[in-house]
Amino acid sequence: MKELTRGFSRREAMMTGAALAAGAGLTTEALAQNGGAEARLKALDITLPVVQPPVANYVPFKKVGNLIFVAGQVPFKDGKILHPGRVPTDVSIDQAKEAARQCAINMLAVLRLATGGSLDAIKECVRLEGFVASDPSFTAQPAIINGASDLMVSVFGDAGRHARIAVGSPSLPLNSAVELAGYFAI
Amino acid sequence: MKELTRGFSRREAMMTGAALAAGAGLTTEALAQNGGAEARLKALDITLPVVQPPVANYVPFKKVGNLIFVAGQVPFKDGKILHPGRVPTDVSIDQAKEAARQCAINMLAVLRLATGGSLDAIKECVRLEGFVASDPSFTAQPAIINGASDLMVSVFGDAGRHARIAVGSPSLPLNSAVELAGYFAI
Amino acid sequence: MKELTRGFSRREAMMTGAALAAGAGLTTEALAQNGGAEARLKALDITLPVVQPPVANYVPFKKVGNLIFVAGQVPFKDGKILHPGRVPTDVSIDQAKEAARQCAINMLAVLRLATGGSLDAIKECVRLEGFVASDPSFTAQPAIINGASDLMVSVFGDAGRHARIAVGSPSLPLNSAVELAGYFAI
Repeated sequence: MKELTRGFSRREAMMTGAALAAGAGLTTEALAQNGGAEARLKALDITLPVVQPPVANYVPFKKVGNLIFVAGQVPFKDGKILHPGRVPTDVSIDQAKEAARQCAINMLAVLRLATGGSLDAIKECVRLEGFVASDPSFTAQPAIINGASDLMVSVFGDAGRHARIAVGSPSLPLNSAVELAGYFAI
Repeated sequence: MKELTRGFSRREAMMTGAALAAGAGLTTEALAQNGGAEARLKALDITLPVVQPPVANYVPFKKVGNLIFVAGQVPFKDGKILHPGRVPTDVSIDQAKEAARQCAINMLAVLRLATGGSLDAIKECVRLEGFVASDPSFTAQPAIINGASDLMVSVFGDAGRHARIAVGSPSLPLNSAVELAGYFAI
Repeated sequence: MKELTRGFSRREAMMTGAALAAGAGLTTEALAQNGGAEARLKALDITLPVVQPPVANYVPFKKVGNLIFVAGQVPFKDGKILHPGRVPTDVSIDQAKEAARQCAINMLAVLRLATGGSLDAIKECVRLEGFVASDPSFTAQPAIINGASDLMVSVFGDAGRHARIAVGSPSLPLNSAVELAGYFAI
């Protein structure tokens, strides 16, 4: 991917070393010492939750060839939905971004399960699909889903950059502000 | 998949033998005698419709490698949309669940066409994407899409379990209550 | 794909030669002389825009194996969103269809970048995902997304036919009337 995006993105070209470390809340030194995703997760002080199996006839993930398809994640945290409701009437942009980050954390928990115990086995984040419970006048869905995208880059580095969709929805399961699904390569 | 999901889902571990048969409306005896998807379909007394080609520049499915991508299915039945409208104002949860099941039946018809005549060629259901025409206050989309997920497990057994997204939409093509797309492996 | 769709679609069987050329605005002669996607694009007098890198932690496309996943495209044209708003209150069906076509043009620009400079490297369009900013009473999303599907067939011929989803959304990024994502095989 790296060679393909080279040459058209000044912003991405700049997003190296210190800049990436700053985005991730890590010092350059910490990054240099901690190459893998599991180490970065630890440096970010994120503890992954236990995956709750869906209470229906589906599963948290499916593996086909070298792809892992993760089922739609909602912002469960400590047994309840973080910041429920629609944006921006019930939920602020900052809160919804935090909900998107929580969806991404729950997705990492599924991925660790799918890889048999270590996120270091993930080669890259291929695609994220973000649905945002939106008032009809709300059109900043990308700002919300950045909460998930940023976490992926914090944990996987450049390999965390992905193709993405971000769209509005009138309402989501369990009154979630965000639902997030994705594909990853191992 | 089986070995990967083992160990974290008590519910799924229990979902074998008699329980699966009950869910599918089959006796354990019938399941033992009828291993394949086509036989289960027959035991469920489901007749697949003739696939109607889209009246536009797209096709009902695409095969890439060992994956079949099925286009979005709406709940067509006998030439009209089953239970049109939004949930729950126009369409009850039970009706919408029935519409989701009808989408899944239409998807099976496409899959039989894609495999050259037999669902027994399907190795597994990888992912279902369910969109539910929802009033802004409706947040039980998963309960609706279970109508499709349950049918997949009834027909394909454990191989019918899939990653899934279930989201709300303000309105869907032809005033459908549900639209369902999916990926399958052969 | 061709052999798999044969036999069930009279409409598609007829969609050859002159009919396809007419749909694409090309004479049969022009098509015969110009086999490749780049030549057809030129014959259609379409100039692809320069790809703008996303101002966030994601990328315009990801390649995995022989698949290219293109991120969600909005109808940017000459630095602004073409026909913003919801259908049909703010945006007519014809305008929204034009917005969908613009999304597809922007997608082609990403694909040309992804293939290192030529759309002729694209083997087929696998799947398009179209989201239409819809009033709750609007249910003709497929008519809108045809604006994108038709362009794919105009540029790639039969290889441009794809599996598709077309759904409604209450609102989309930057007040776009359409967002379009897709997968392509090389």
